[in-house]
Amino acid sequence: MKELEDRIQRDGQILGNGILKVDSFVNHQVDPLLMDSCGKEFARRFASLGATKVLTAEISGIAPALMTAIHLKLPVVYARKTKPVTMPDQVYLTLAPSHTKGRMVELIVSPEYLAQGEKILIIDDFLASGATILGLVRLAEASGSKVVGIGALIEKLFEGGRAALKHLNLPIESLACITAMDGGKITFGEPV
Amino acid sequence: MKELEDRIQRDGQILGNGILKVDSFVNHQVDPLLMDSCGKEFARRFASLGATKVLTAEISGIAPALMTAIHLKLPVVYARKTKPVTMPDQVYLTLAPSHTKGRMVELIVSPEYLAQGEKILIIDDFLASGATILGLVRLAEASGSKVVGIGALIEKLFEGGRAALKHLNLPIESLACITAMDGGKITFGEPV
Repeated sequence: MKELEDRIQRDGQILGNGILKVDSFVNHQVDPLLMDSCGKEFARRFASLGATKVLTAEISGIAPALMTAIHLKLPVVYARKTKPVTMPDQVYLTLAPSHTKGRMVELIVSPEYLAQGEKILIIDDFLASGATILGLVRLAEASGSKVVGIGALIEKLFEGGRAALKHLNLPIESLACITAMDGGKITFGEPV
Repeated sequence: MKELEDRIQRDGQILGNGILKVDSFVNHQVDPLLMDSCGKEFARRFASLGATKVLTAEISGIAPALMTAIHLKLPVVYARKTKPVTMPDQVYLTLAPSHTKGRMVELIVSPEYLAQGEKILIIDDFLASGATILGLVRLAEASGSKVVGIGALIEKLFEGGRAALKHLNLPIESLACITAMDGGKITFGEPV
């Protein structure tokens, strides 16, 4: 999606260690109009899947997932990383390694909002190693739901997430696919 | 706002200890169309203030703040509760007691996205004791910005937040103002 690629090229910062900082429009400050365009584009690409719910992980997944859910007119659930007092004792919980935090994080969903038979569309900000998205897939499967598609704003193809998700045989869409981040230069391409 | 009050009346759960669970449409599962209506209503009420940025706190503030920002066509910044690796060493940081967590939490904003001279509209999910919103006000003031208005989806008038914010002399808008939550019954009213 050209609008997102242009914005990454203009405002993204390569911090080293494979980290792309997009804090000025995705992760700390959010550009709501860009996010609306991204949500509309996800809705268009996934319109035919018959999804019944959008699932994401707090915190950075919330904005793109919410904007996708608006355009699909579906509820969105965000997996929590700490269990709030409002959640029942019995939950779906899985562990996923966090690249930016350098440790395992919990992903928790209440059975109240992930019922058997749902068709789940997973939306997140990044597809890097795929670890967070695989965690969300495990949560959906634990509930007896079926994941029908996976979308990420930004894919770092060279970190292997698409390969790690291949066995799921699901449509995977990223709106900006980065094939290389060498020498301070961001190169976009098509997933292969 | 009748749509929100009706939804709280139908789907909200009183858990005791003053906690109102709205996890099915605000805090864990989000109803995007309701959130869009709420954002539109905040935008209408605050339209004349000339705000230049919307500020909220992760996690639950993100959805209502984002939807307000879309309708006002403004960027939104969410204060982080842990400092991500992408944030510079020098930050604005304040502490605020969390009612639902039973401890102090940090609220952190990067100086990159809160510049001097901004006119800040604060939006959050709840106005209870006002502690989180006062924390956001301190962050805005530390940056040399000026808060021009405060909005919350749900106000629990009996927890004193409105009184705690009174000295700021700012417009405070809540879309559903709860005056009592006794005996399992939620009563709405007008702030006094």
